[in-house]
Order: sequence, then structure tokens, then C-alpha cells
Amino acid sequence: MNQLKLKQSLELFFIEDIGDGDITSDFLFKNVESEGEFLVKQPGVFCGGDVITAGYQLLDQSVEVKLLKKDGEPVVPGEIIAHVKGKQSSLLKGERVILNLIQRMSGIATLTARAVNNLQSPHTRICDTRKTTPGLRMFEKYAVRMGGGFNHRNGLYDAVMIKDNHIACTGSITEAVEQLRNGLGHMVKIEVETENEAQVREAVSAGVDCIMFDNRNVDEIKRFIELIPSPITTEASGGISIDDLSAYRSCGIDYISLGCLTHSVESLDISLNTINKKGGMESEHFSNYGGFNTNIT
Amino acid sequence: MNQLKLKQSLELFFIEDIGDGDITSDFLFKNVESEGEFLVKQPGVFCGGDVITAGYQLLDQSVEVKLLKKDGEPVVPGEIIAHVKGKQSSLLKGERVILNLIQRMSGIATLTARAVNNLQSPHTRICDTRKTTPGLRMFEKYAVRMGGGFNHRNGLYDAVMIKDNHIACTGSITEAVEQLRNGLGHMVKIEVETENEAQVREAVSAGVDCIMFDNRNVDEIKRFIELIPSPITTEASGGISIDDLSAYRSCGIDYISLGCLTHSVESLDISLNTINKKGGMESEHFSNYGGFNTNIT
Amino acid sequence: MNQLKLKQSLELFFIEDIGDGDITSDFLFKNVESEGEFLVKQPGVFCGGDVITAGYQLLDQSVEVKLLKKDGEPVVPGEIIAHVKGKQSSLLKGERVILNLIQRMSGIATLTARAVNNLQSPHTRICDTRKTTPGLRMFEKYAVRMGGGFNHRNGLYDAVMIKDNHIACTGSITEAVEQLRNGLGHMVKIEVETENEAQVREAVSAGVDCIMFDNRNVDEIKRFIELIPSPITTEASGGISIDDLSAYRSCGIDYISLGCLTHSVESLDISLNTINKKGGMESEHFSNYGGFNTNIT
Amino acid sequence: MNQLKLKQSLELFFIEDIGDGDITSDFLFKNVESEGEFLVKQPGVFCGGDVITAGYQLLDQSVEVKLLKKDGEPVVPGEIIAHVKGKQSSLLKGERVILNLIQRMSGIATLTARAVNNLQSPHTRICDTRKTTPGLRMFEKYAVRMGGGFNHRNGLYDAVMIKDNHIACTGSITEAVEQLRNGLGHMVKIEVETENEAQVREAVSAGVDCIMFDNRNVDEIKRFIELIPSPITTEASGGISIDDLSAYRSCGIDYISLGCLTHSVESLDISLNTINKKGGMESEHFSNYGGFNTNIT
Amino acid sequence: MNQLKLKQSLELFFIEDIGDGDITSDFLFKNVESEGEFLVKQPGVFCGGDVITAGYQLLDQSVEVKLLKKDGEPVVPGEIIAHVKGKQSSLLKGERVILNLIQRMSGIATLTARAVNNLQSPHTRICDTRKTTPGLRMFEKYAVRMGGGFNHRNGLYDAVMIKDNHIACTGSITEAVEQLRNGLGHMVKIEVETENEAQVREAVSAGVDCIMFDNRNVDEIKRFIELIPSPITTEASGGISIDDLSAYRSCGIDYISLGCLTHSVESLDISLNTINKKGGMESEHFSNYGGFNTNIT
Amino acid sequence: MNQLKLKQSLELFFIEDIGDGDITSDFLFKNVESEGEFLVKQPGVFCGGDVITAGYQLLDQSVEVKLLKKDGEPVVPGEIIAHVKGKQSSLLKGERVILNLIQRMSGIATLTARAVNNLQSPHTRICDTRKTTPGLRMFEKYAVRMGGGFNHRNGLYDAVMIKDNHIACTGSITEAVEQLRNGLGHMVKIEVETENEAQVREAVSAGVDCIMFDNRNVDEIKRFIELIPSPITTEASGGISIDDLSAYRSCGIDYISLGCLTHSVESLDISLNTINKKGGMESEHFSNYGGFNTNIT
Repeated sequence: MNQLKLKQSLELFFIEDIGDGDITSDFLFKNVESEGEFLVKQPGVFCGGDVITAGYQLLDQSVEVKLLKKDGEPVVPGEIIAHVKGKQSSLLKGERVILNLIQRMSGIATLTARAVNNLQSPHTRICDTRKTTPGLRMFEKYAVRMGGGFNHRNGLYDAVMIKDNHIACTGSITEAVEQLRNGLGHMVKIEVETENEAQVREAVSAGVDCIMFDNRNVDEIKRFIELIPSPITTEASGGISIDDLSAYRSCGIDYISLGCLTHSVESLDISLNTINKKGGMESEHFSNYGGFNTNIT
Repeated sequence: MNQLKLKQSLELFFIEDIGDGDITSDFLFKNVESEGEFLVKQPGVFCGGDVITAGYQLLDQSVEVKLLKKDGEPVVPGEIIAHVKGKQSSLLKGERVILNLIQRMSGIATLTARAVNNLQSPHTRICDTRKTTPGLRMFEKYAVRMGGGFNHRNGLYDAVMIKDNHIACTGSITEAVEQLRNGLGHMVKIEVETENEAQVREAVSAGVDCIMFDNRNVDEIKRFIELIPSPITTEASGGISIDDLSAYRSCGIDYISLGCLTHSVESLDISLNTINKKGGMESEHFSNYGGFNTNIT
Repeated sequence: MNQLKLKQSLELFFIEDIGDGDITSDFLFKNVESEGEFLVKQPGVFCGGDVITAGYQLLDQSVEVKLLKKDGEPVVPGEIIAHVKGKQSSLLKGERVILNLIQRMSGIATLTARAVNNLQSPHTRICDTRKTTPGLRMFEKYAVRMGGGFNHRNGLYDAVMIKDNHIACTGSITEAVEQLRNGLGHMVKIEVETENEAQVREAVSAGVDCIMFDNRNVDEIKRFIELIPSPITTEASGGISIDDLSAYRSCGIDYISLGCLTHSVESLDISLNTINKKGGMESEHFSNYGGFNTNIT
Repeated sequence: MNQLKLKQSLELFFIEDIGDGDITSDFLFKNVESEGEFLVKQPGVFCGGDVITAGYQLLDQSVEVKLLKKDGEPVVPGEIIAHVKGKQSSLLKGERVILNLIQRMSGIATLTARAVNNLQSPHTRICDTRKTTPGLRMFEKYAVRMGGGFNHRNGLYDAVMIKDNHIACTGSITEAVEQLRNGLGHMVKIEVETENEAQVREAVSAGVDCIMFDNRNVDEIKRFIELIPSPITTEASGGISIDDLSAYRSCGIDYISLGCLTHSVESLDISLNTINKKGGMESEHFSNYGGFNTNIT
Repeated sequence: MNQLKLKQSLELFFIEDIGDGDITSDFLFKNVESEGEFLVKQPGVFCGGDVITAGYQLLDQSVEVKLLKKDGEPVVPGEIIAHVKGKQSSLLKGERVILNLIQRMSGIATLTARAVNNLQSPHTRICDTRKTTPGLRMFEKYAVRMGGGFNHRNGLYDAVMIKDNHIACTGSITEAVEQLRNGLGHMVKIEVETENEAQVREAVSAGVDCIMFDNRNVDEIKRFIELIPSPITTEASGGISIDDLSAYRSCGIDYISLGCLTHSVESLDISLNTINKKGGMESEHFSNYGGFNTNIT
Repeated sequence: MNQLKLKQSLELFFIEDIGDGDITSDFLFKNVESEGEFLVKQPGVFCGGDVITAGYQLLDQSVEVKLLKKDGEPVVPGEIIAHVKGKQSSLLKGERVILNLIQRMSGIATLTARAVNNLQSPHTRICDTRKTTPGLRMFEKYAVRMGGGFNHRNGLYDAVMIKDNHIACTGSITEAVEQLRNGLGHMVKIEVETENEAQVREAVSAGVDCIMFDNRNVDEIKRFIELIPSPITTEASGGISIDDLSAYRSCGIDYISLGCLTHSVESLDISLNTINKKGGMESEHFSNYGGFNTNIT
């Protein structure tokens, strides 16, 4: 991730949550020092270490963050992702936003890892789509990679995808590819969406870089792949659920793109437990309250 | 929603997807006019009409948008949410971002409506939390309302929530409430998180506006509510799943807050079908291709 | 104050004043080191320590700032608020913007303290309004608190104020409150503006959280308060000058809101005296010029 | 004023006040049409027509604004500055921010006009300083002009002001002017702050464009002016109150700069009276409520 | 070009030039209407029509712009690119920024067209590099296309370029390509920079998409190309001047990238001639002054 | 240069180039440490030290930068401008943007120095115009100064330039100057563009600060200058090429403004050579590859 964009986004997100101030903590705490742990409460794949580090760096440079897990690392309940130490009010100000982000990123990494595991293919890769949450594409595409998946194009600007309406407007795949080749340089890949054998054959002879099979079943995919010479990459997309991926294990496709990796994510449950340290009373508090599982509304 | 913030967000989101240009459409279409329909593909509750209208207004003022469904209206597959008409390249440039947003907002409205329906209580309300997607809080809290739910506080800045670590640091609920009352004005509500009867009793005598029962079961909730005089609002939070809501129907609680409404949303399936009109060839295209279901990667 | 918003605002303000560069200092000083003191020239209440610290931190991290007064502390002429030390050009670049802000914030804190002192009521509190300077609301509401006052709502987004035109459009106070209760959650306070006994009675039975008496005299206020049960907060607003506050001392009102605290502020006179240190000539300069009272145009 | 900067500032200011939405009006009004008048309640000089026009244009393009007063025009209580017509919720959303700005701008224009009138000199002009409200310099310097005053430099970037600490650091006025002339081009004016005859003489021979007398009384000013050849502009600054300006009427000074024009402004009282029109009930509302003087908290 | 980014950039650029206002025109013109023509003064290729249209749209929606030349069209001195009509002050406010941009864009299009013409190859294309002006990449890459050139990658984010230091750090081209293929998806092209035959052979067997010959002469290029199978694109870069391009006409290379297209551009001379229309005096002005060639400092 | 604006611009420029990440370096390097040198490859005048320092500070605070040349210092091929040391990926991420800026700034400084040298006049100064690259005015005007030139006005906001169309609209130079003097304060210089003796005489009697001769030859200039009293500054502009400047050496003009200094700049060739250090293999890499001249596409 680009650290400058990461910081700009985090600034936006913190201001969304904190507004003109945290009226609970700002009126209660002066200089209470505290420690906390980001604690895993559900098995999965962690993602978002930079969010914790850069987040607290932005909010309060005196907060110390010690990461114990790396992005992409499998985690189980009870494991600690990071220790944080600093002013109680700073720890709490950052908590919700950081959790919202790393829970989502870890949810995506976990879902991607599950897809990769279900597929279990030495040849076929799982990739994402542009069905990401607006404003979070960099975060979510990064999380897909950390879960073992791959990134499809970033946006409309970095690769060509010729779809049915492009074909209809232009007249044919051949015509569309020719027009694009006349205007685009050599560093851009061209993919075309196909739905039947005729289109696949036309795409092959048009010389595209990638051919996508849109909403095709395994048998169709197998049949189409035989028509395609090896330098052309193939991709299956549409109507494929994570639980059915094993069916695609041996069909020979290069990539399976899954919108669900980012558009319908279940967050991974992670919480921040903080323990305040108030002069000599620290141990007393420990015995009274233990660690706090901050299940914040 | 604040229309100025809506526009600023949409601008950010479009630039995230379009970058320096849509290299597929920009190189294929000059002045092809087109029409399209936002089509429901899954039953649910629609939300996001302003996103379609303001979105196309930002991208290309000549695109005409006609909304056929209102926010909060139930929809079934096959129904049309909106007609759009304008340059094909403009329709396609906005498609993915607009779909990503309205699918998510409709997903939230749908999930909220399901919660309200499961609960089916004349007295108890469903509300959201701060577990929203960073950058989308205004959109998501609006969607909760459109689904029949209510909004908890917007952020750390507009209402007080005294949680376990606040209590521990300050010494007691009583002490925390007193400190807050000494600093805060009369337009701020104070809620306290409680876990046992002693805390509930202390919260009542401290005179808070709302008492939250954190991770309590129905029996505990019933017992606690009897200790609380009616002007104080009660809220149950934590460990409540949408499918178990009927169990809370008659416990007398005022609000049930559900983090899942926003943190783990399944998007509602909506697509944009476009039909290009290229001079006299329009009907021909119709017969060849019909409408296109733009399942964009 | 939210430190992230503070920094963003200061950045905007410094760029407004410095533009592409300080053409006086940039062309005169290379590496002259200097020290300075923010000096009180008028009795009052200081407010704005964070502005000095965060301001110089933004402009030049090598400037050292030592605060000698806390926000909310009374000050008298001749007292020093802060010592600063660093490059002469950095000290001067920040001077005007920092003074403009802290003079204004201290002016508000001073005025508020005067209001609190004039009122001298153990029961009644002074609060602010939304009549703040555009762009400075966070700063000004903070200054009101530092002067011993309290904050009314932050903006249109965090609390409800039902005014005459709301009532007229909706039909009645009762109807307006009902509509709002049907849409708003439990963390939002509802206040209604009243002008006569009928409205006060209607507001009470509608169950609002706060009742404001708009432009009512002390006798009316006393009479209205008797109609209002204690859980409802009362507020007097409109036509109350700071010099007449003692008249309200015993009327039993909870809050008196004063637009003048922020809309017509007299800045507190504070200046920055700098003393440059240029190699061995330092003492000579001292004898020639003494400290400089920077009364900048 | 630069219209692009005006719009950017207004956008910032509206978002500061409206946040995620106006929870009172948004929950009460659907499509109530309304009219309103910006009404003068205190004699003075109006300033801020563009703020009303551009403000409503930003919030809701369907609001019609008709300005009846021009910037710089004297106004008396009861006069109407502008008619506005449109959705009640749009009129109210913009009201507070627009009033806060035009009250302040009109307050500055009024104060400046009073200064000009007190001075009543055919030769001497009143000008402002850099003691403006951070974020509002463009607005406030414009208001000074509309009140009949003149602008001193905009910021540190567009003109040179050599002050005591610049002189001390550089060694002498002569040396400072020479260094600046060596680096700066021909489109920048150089002013020097002087406190005694020796400095005035040195400034004259150094060939500066303007000489400022810092905190000098009328007699000193008269004496100094005689030492200064006519192409050099003279300015008196510091310790001059608006009520004493007549004393300076005949002293021959070219400019008197007054920090108080912008740093301690009393807002001019202006209000927005709105009248809602709800189908056939319009006249009834008129008889019940008349116009509403929106004295918003 | 992305119209949303275009507008954001133009806003930034206009504010850079206009600041708080155009103190010449704002103090001279009230409502003078005027017309103007963007006039070609040097032969070349025009580029920047959107800048004129969107620029005046931003500054003043009442300005009418009529484009007479399309982007990419050759122009000769005396030809008119666009007619503009509106307030004199609006025309002049936009003039310098618009000219600075379209002169630069047209300069790039002209230079590119010259390169394409010098090369005159049916097979080989001219392309740009990342040596663009910071902040103007979208504008400059667009201008290269309008001049008949092609775009290399947009930035570090959309395509891979393996250079000497990447190879050195990783160990070998083979190793670098393998690492990249393991992490990157199928929509990203990989290019490698080579300097000798061994590297070319290694790149071919590593299966890259493009091979660049860095600072190689025509003979070397011819020799290397023979080692490369046709699906791999070839590019020559470094040390190639526009005047020597004919030497590369028949060497068989696919792309020649030229940093000079954007890093050392000579602007194409275009001016704005305005003619003011001031009531009945219009013709008189014509006879006195004719059109004005605004050669603004 | 204003350091806050410098940082804001650099942030914008880095994000333009890096986007969501540097997909080459991010996938190849983990923690490779490296060193590099910014190396001069063409004789000229260096400018841009702050860009290197602030640029790497923004990207990665752990990168160490040691500047060996000062802005404005002449440099020859082979000289080193700065040493940098840090993570290889950070060095490479910043390289292209920093080079694009300092090459351009050094190109401007070099061209300006050449102009000053060609002119070789003890009296006449070279100055710039508003023909700068949009978004880079602060950088480019600074570079002109570092090359020994002077700055004309910054923009439309800080000085007056009365041009032919202003004169035509207003009626006469006299009238225009009077109108401007009536509105503008004493810190703004007024320049007028003249084309013939009558205009020069009118400008003198109108009392402007500067008179510009627009497109006049040396003889005309000499003749006009005799009509102008010494306190008025004179400027020649239009149609003057850098190579003909010696012809103006003795004509007595004060300033010669040259648009070409910024609108058609040839970048000065500077490159970044990096040397990676990978454990004990460092020396081996040295022998294999030596330093790398990063000629990046």
C-alpha cells in the first residue's frame, strides 16, 4: 500500500469518527497511561498491521505499537496481534476506526484464504474484481493478496475489459480490439468477456491477452479452454460460489474472479483489550476488572 | 444525507475507479447514446436513489435519471429502480461505483428490515452502532433508517458512552457521570454500559439518560429493566443475532443495537442493463443482443 | 479539540498568511536563532496553548515551545504564556496566525468568564450558540468551555431544536415532536423554542428534553419554569446582555445561551516579543533594542 | 472576491454546521416550499451579497435569491437585503452559516464606515491589517473595502514590512532595505516601521516606498511627515482608537491602519424571516404566526 | 481525460493565479461584455479544447465557448481555435492559466507529431515516459496521444518495469520475473530493461511481455530483435533524439520511448485576442485599437 | 518557498506517480538497504535541494539525505548533488518525481543564469512572467531567483498590470490609473503596458510605478526611457530572445521580462545512481554492476 494514501485515508476516517472531539474520554481522562492488546476472537487470516501502526502514529506519536502478527498470517482465538501502550484517551480514540478497518481487511484475507483452500489447485488462481467498497479499494485489494489471492485490474484506467455493451456498440470483438490496439500502448492488457464459442474463437483470432468466460459452467469452460492457445490467459467469472470452487479445480482455467471477496465480507472478530494504569492503583484495578473487552457501540 | 458531503464522497469514489480515464470506453465510444435500467435481481429493500442522481449529475450533467423506486421501498427481482439515458461512456463510467454503493446501502436496508421483521415488537427498536465502514458512515446510517432501524450516536463527538474502561479509570459510574455532567452541556445524552445489577442500580441513581446491557441474556435483561424508571432508555447490545431477535420481542427493552447491520453486510444484487442506440442500427442491436446485464469485473 | 482537525485548520491558516513565502524574513534571515515570549497585555483568561504548540510543530519541528499557562487560567498583563526558541524566520512566520487565534480564543474565554462571574449562580449555567465564526467552531466552543461556559449543540447534526417555523410547518409542537421521535434514535436530545405559556405546556406534555424560552423576561421565565417538571432542562435565550446577567441569578433557569460569546468578540491583547541572537553581538542588540513588541500590520 | 475560493470556503463552512444532516428539518419537512427575507435589524453598512447567492447555489440550485441591497450600501432596521424562495429545509440549512458570515462582513463594513466618517479627511485613508480571522481574510479584507477602507498587504507574501526585529537582526534599516532590493523584483512595495526621527531619516534615505510610524502621537507624526518627500507614502499605526480619529484629520498622514476593524468586530444584526407555504394553508399560517424571526441557537 | 480530475486540477490552477482576486480587472470592470478568440501564432498540432471549455465553465458559467478546432488537428498561424464571449473580467481571469495549459499541451502534441513524422514508420510507434511535469501527467499523456504518440505506463502502479537495480537486488532477470509472477495478477504487463545480448536472451526465456533496449544503437537493436519471438513487444529507449528518428525507421522495433516529449517542451504560441463591447462605443474602440494580442506578463 | 505548500505539492505529485503502490519494487524488495547519489550529467545551475530533503522525509522518514550542493550553485557533469541512504524501495519510489522536479527547477535556474550572463549589465535585471507551469509557480519563481533573476508579480492578486484591453475598456491610461488608485491601498504597485510615445507620456503623468514597453526595439526603448523620471521603473517585454540580450545591455532599461524562462524549459540532466547493499554480497554487486544510472521510463 502507498503509505501517503494510507495516511490520507486514515486521517479522513478518524475525523469521521472523532469529529470535534471524543466527548467521553476527553472529559474523563487527563493523563491516564494505559496498555492494550488487539486480540483475535475468531480463527482466520490477519491483515492490517500498517493500519494499527500508521493509525496511532497519526493520532498520537507517543503511542507505542508492537506488532506480533504479520499480514497474511493465520491466527486463532486468543492470539495477540499487537501490543499498544500510551495515553488511554489516544488508545480509545483510535480503537473503533482501526478495528473497523482491520476486521474488514482480515475478513477479506480470511475469505480469500478459504477460497484458495477450497480450490486447492496448483494451476488456477483466485482473483478479485472492482466490486470493492468505495474509498477502500487499495485496502481491500491488498487484503486479497494477503489472503493468497491475486488482483484483477485496479480500475477503469489500468487495463481494458471489453464487455457485451462495448462489443455491441463497436460491432464486433474484432473491431473493438482493433480500435483499442490503434490507441493504446504496449503496457496495457486487453481482456474480453465471452459467452459462447463463436465469441471465444473471435477473441482468439483478435489476439487479446485474456479471455473471460462470463457465467459459464465447468463443462463449457473446459470446452472453451481447448480453443485457446497458451499465451492467452483465461478467466472464469460470474455465478461461482466459494463453496463450489473444488468443481473448478481441474478445468484448466487460469483465474477465477470472485466479487464476493470484497462486496459481501464478514468481518473477522478482533477486539482491543485495554488495561489502565493509574499510579499505584494499577494492580487493584487489575483484580477488580481484569482486561476489558471493548465491545464499543 | 448532507448533499455537499454526498458530492464530495462521490467525487472521491469516482476518481478512485476512473483514475486518468476509462481506457476501454474512452477509446471505443465517441458519441454513442444509450439507455439503461438499474434492475433488481434479489428481493430486498432499496436504498440509494440520491447516489444515482447525484452520481450521474457529477459525471455528466446531460445524463437523465428517472427514479422509479424510493429509498426504503421493498423491491423484488425484475423491478426497475431507475431509468438512465445519456452517453454510453458516461453511463458505463458511473456504473460500478454507483452499483457498489447502492448494493451496499440496499443490503443494509434489507438486513435492517429483516431484523425489524424478526423482532416484530411494537415497543422495541433496532439500532446501529459505530461498526460502519470507514468513510461511509453517513451512507450506512442513512440506510439503516431506510430499512426501518434507528441510529445510535454518529461518532465519539455527539453523545457519551461510558464503558468498562472509562469506569475503571474514573473509579465508578457515579464518579464518571458526575465528571461528565460538570463539563458537558444539556444537549448531550449520556449512556452507560452495564454488566450486572449493581452497575444498573448505580447507573439509575447517577441519573444517566440511557443504560446499556452488555452481552446479557433475555432473563437478565428482564430483571434489570424492572430496576429502571421509565424516563431512562434501555438498550441491549452484544451477542444478539438477527435470527434470535424474536426472543427479545417481549422483554421490554427499548433498543437493540446490532453491529452486524453494517459490519458484515451482504450486498443486494442490483445490475445496470444498458442498451446502446447507434443511429439507425438501434433496433438491429436490440434483436441481436437484447439488454446487457453488466456483470463487470 | 481533535488534534487532526486542529492541524488541518492550522495548515490552512498558515498558508493563507504565508502564501508562497514570507518575502521579508526569507530575504533577510538565513540562520539567525531567536527566542521569544508570548506576553499578556490585558487581564483575562488564556486559551489556546495547543495552537502555539501544534502551530510551531507544523511550521518548523525544531522550534521549542514551553507553555507556562494552561487553557482556562486567569492572566494579568506582564505574564508570560509561553517561551519559544528557534529560527527567527520560523518564529515570525507563525506569529500573526497564532496570535490571531489565541487572542480570539482568549477573548472568548475571558468574555465567558465575565458572564459566569456576573451571573454568579450555583444553579444556572452559561452556554454558547451556533453563532460562531465559520471555520472556527471547534476552536470557539472549546474556548467557551475554558472560560467556564458550556456548549449548546455543535451543529444541525447532533441535536434537535424545534423553532417557530418548524412548528408552523408541522402544525404543532406535539406533532413535530412525534414526527421526530418516530425517526430519531435515543441518543439525540430534543429542545423546543417557546414564546408563551400555551407552548410551554404543550412542550411539557410532548415530553421534550429541553425547553427554551425565546426572548422572555425574568418574570415570564419564573412563571414558565413552575410549569415544567424537573427532568426537563430549561434554557433562556435572546435579548440577554452580559451586563444584565445578575437579574437572572435566582430565576431558576438551567441554561442561559449567549450568542455574543462568539459572534462579537473582543480579542485579548497578547503579543510576541522576540529577541534575536546573532553570534557574539547578542548583548549589544539587547542594549540597543531590548525586547521587541511585535505589533505587526 | 475570487468566486472559486468563495465556493470552497462556503462548502467547508456548511459542512461544519450541517455535518451528516440537519436532523430537525430533515425529519420534519418533505417538500414544503417557503419564502424568506434577510432583514436588517440594526443600522449599518451591508456586505455579503455574494455569500447569500453563492451559498444557496451550493446548497440547492433550485433556491431563488433576489438581492435588494448592494455591498457597501447603508441600511436601516426594517430594510430587506434579499428575498429567498425555495424548499424550507434548504432555506433553513443555509441560514445560520450565511447569517454568521454576512453579519460579520457587514459588521466590518459598518465599523470601517464609522472610522472613515470619524476621520472625515479628504487626504487620509483608513486601512486594515493582517489581524483578520484565520480562514476569513479574503472575506474580511473585502468587507473593509466595502466600508470605504483600503487594504494593507494581504499576507507575508505580497509586500515587505521591515519591523524592529528585522532591523535588529540585519543591523540597520539601510542594510535591510539594501538586502531586500538585491533580492526582490520591481513589483513589491517596501514599508518600514519607525519609532523615532533617526529611523525616519534613515528610511527616507534608504528609499523605501512607505514609512510607518509605530505608536506615535499626532505631534510626532506631524513632525516626522515633514521629513518625508512626497513620493513616499506614510502610515500611522498602533494605539489609535476609532473614536479618536478626528484628531488625525489634519496631520497629513496618508494611511491609518486599524487592527480593530477585523480583530474585534461586533456583528451587524441581520435575521432571516421565513414564511412557509403549505398548500392552501398558507394564509392561515400567516394569520397564526406572521413572519418568523429566526433567532437560532 | 477524467473530467472530474480535470476540474479539480483547473480549480487548483486558477486559484494559484487569481488568489483572492484579480486586482486589475476587479477594480476596473463592472459589467463590460467582451468577445475573444484563441488565435494560433505558430504552426503545430492543437490540444486542449476541454481545458478552454471546462475552464470557463468553472470560472463563470455565463461565458460561451465555441471550439473551432479539435484536439489533434494541425493548425497554422492565423487560425482560430475558439471563440469566447462573456464578461471581460471573466475572460481575462481565465486567460493566462488556460493559455499556459493549452500552449504546453499543444507543444507536446506538436513535438510528438514531429517525432512521428520524422520516424515515418508503418510499424514502429512513438511513446512517452514518466518524465512528465509533476501534477500534469494526465494532461501531458493525453497530449502525446493527440499528437499521434502512444502512452507508456501511467505510473509505478499500473505496469512493471524491471530495471538494472531491480535485477541486481533480486539476483537475475529470471528470479525477478518469477517473484513478480508469483505476486501479480494477469492484467499487468511486465517489461524488462536490457543492455546486452545475455540479458535479452534471459528476458526472452523468462517470458516477459516487453523488452526494452536501454541506450542501444541501431545495429545492436537490429541484432537483439532477431532473438525475440514476435509476441514479445520491443522498445528502444535512451539517447534517441527526435532528429535522428529516421535512422530507426527500419530497425523493426515496436516502440521508441522519448522522454523529451514531455520533459523539455517548447510551448506552442497561442494567444487570446479580446475585443470589449461597451455600449455604443464598441466600433470606436475597434478603430482605435483593433484586436488586442494579450501578451500578458 | 513555503514549506507547508512544498509538502502539500510533493504529496500530490508522489501520489500521482505511485498510485496504490509501486508494483515493481513492492513485490521485489523487502528490506534491502541501499545508497544513491544524485549525479549531474550536464553543466548548469542546480536548484531543488528542499525537494530532495522534504520529498524523502514525506515518503520514508528513515531515508537519510545529505545535500552537497546549494540552490543556485553552478555544477558540472560528474558532480554529486546529494547522497541518499535508506530502503531501496523508498529511494526508487521517490526517484522519478524528485528528478522531474529538480531537473526542471535546475533547467530554469540554468536558463536564467545564461540570460543574466548574456545580458551582463550592472543595471538591468532579468525577470520572469506568469507564463509558468500550472501548479508549479512557487517552484519555478524560486528557480528563477536561484538563477540570478528576479520575480515579476506572483499572480493577478498581488500587483496591477494595466494592459491594452484594460485601457480600451476604461477609456485611457489616466482614467484606469485613477480608478485603481481610488480602490487600491498603498502596498500595491501599478504597472502599465505601453506601445508608443503618447502612452509612455500619459503613463508618466498618471504617476504609475512601472512602465512596460511591449514589443519595442532597442532604439524605441532608449527613446522612451528618456521621457521617464527615475523613480518609475521600466521594463521591456515581448519578442526578446535570450541570445539577443547583449543588445539591451546599455539601453538603460531596469527589467527585461522573459516568458521563455519558464514556459519552454529544457530540463537539466540529473540522474540518481543507486547501489544496493545486500548483506555480504555488496562488493560483488559493485564489481558486477557498478553504479546504476537510472534512466527510468
